[in-house]
Amino acid sequence: MRYWDDLQVGEKFGTAEYAMTAEEIVAFARQYDPQPFHTDPAAAQQSFFGEHVASGWHTAAVSMRLMVQGEMAVVGGVIGHVIEELRFPRPVRPGDRLRVVQEVVEKTEFPGRPTHGRIKLRCRTFNHDGKLVQDMTANLVIQRRGAGAV
Amino acid sequence: MRYWDDLQVGEKFGTAEYAMTAEEIVAFARQYDPQPFHTDPAAAQQSFFGEHVASGWHTAAVSMRLMVQGEMAVVGGVIGHVIEELRFPRPVRPGDRLRVVQEVVEKTEFPGRPTHGRIKLRCRTFNHDGKLVQDMTANLVIQRRGAGAV
Repeated sequence: MRYWDDLQVGEKFGTAEYAMTAEEIVAFARQYDPQPFHTDPAAAQQSFFGEHVASGWHTAAVSMRLMVQGEMAVVGGVIGHVIEELRFPRPVRPGDRLRVVQEVVEKTEFPGRPTHGRIKLRCRTFNHDGKLVQDMTANLVIQRRGAGAV
Repeated sequence: MRYWDDLQVGEKFGTAEYAMTAEEIVAFARQYDPQPFHTDPAAAQQSFFGEHVASGWHTAAVSMRLMVQGEMAVVGGVIGHVIEELRFPRPVRPGDRLRVVQEVVEKTEFPGRPTHGRIKLRCRTFNHDGKLVQDMTANLVIQRRGAGAV
């Protein structure tokens, strides 16, 4: 388990894969993004996308799961502070297997909270063809070594 | 139902409310953000947050649902292109009732896709105390009038 102190700018971390099924795409969308191109595979053919695609929020949620369970295990958990940019360059489709590559791009103090530090992390989600489906730059709050149990 | 042509810079749209329960906070987090401050109300007391809080991705997903079903009904659906910023200034807790206020802040052509236009939308999610829990600026792709069924 890593503290803020252990992370270096330029370090990269990987994750496992997550298989997106049509069933889960529909279930997530019914609850959180009820639009036909997500909830109805047949109606999706006539939509902007021309095919059944996952909600971007579903892709973001799955990416979070992969990161929480991925190589970059940090003490105290992964706490997002400000997401600077979140792009969906390509849709996610049923059958896609997603994985995330995280890279530490900046490391700064956390003014007013000496027990924690901040890192800026670029998190790219790829499908099994190696195509980029989500590109996010996030600022995380991470516990510092010797800060005690918080 | 509105087309891109009908939306004006400065226009605001509201949504219904969504009640966040401890059960749904735990269920979402078990699937997509399995960290103790989201999945375990007791363990959350000893975490960074000091209380049981929702995943930011859960707040984002609920905000999307509210917007899809909200006042700003657009032809062809709400399609996010690039999210410029997504902040979580305050945690969401069990019992919070969320609502979103959307404001059109910019309106531009969509080069290379004459059937659609873009708007920049500021989407602020508030809890029932009127406190800001999510602040997002998103670029959406919206169908233009007279573009035909797409």
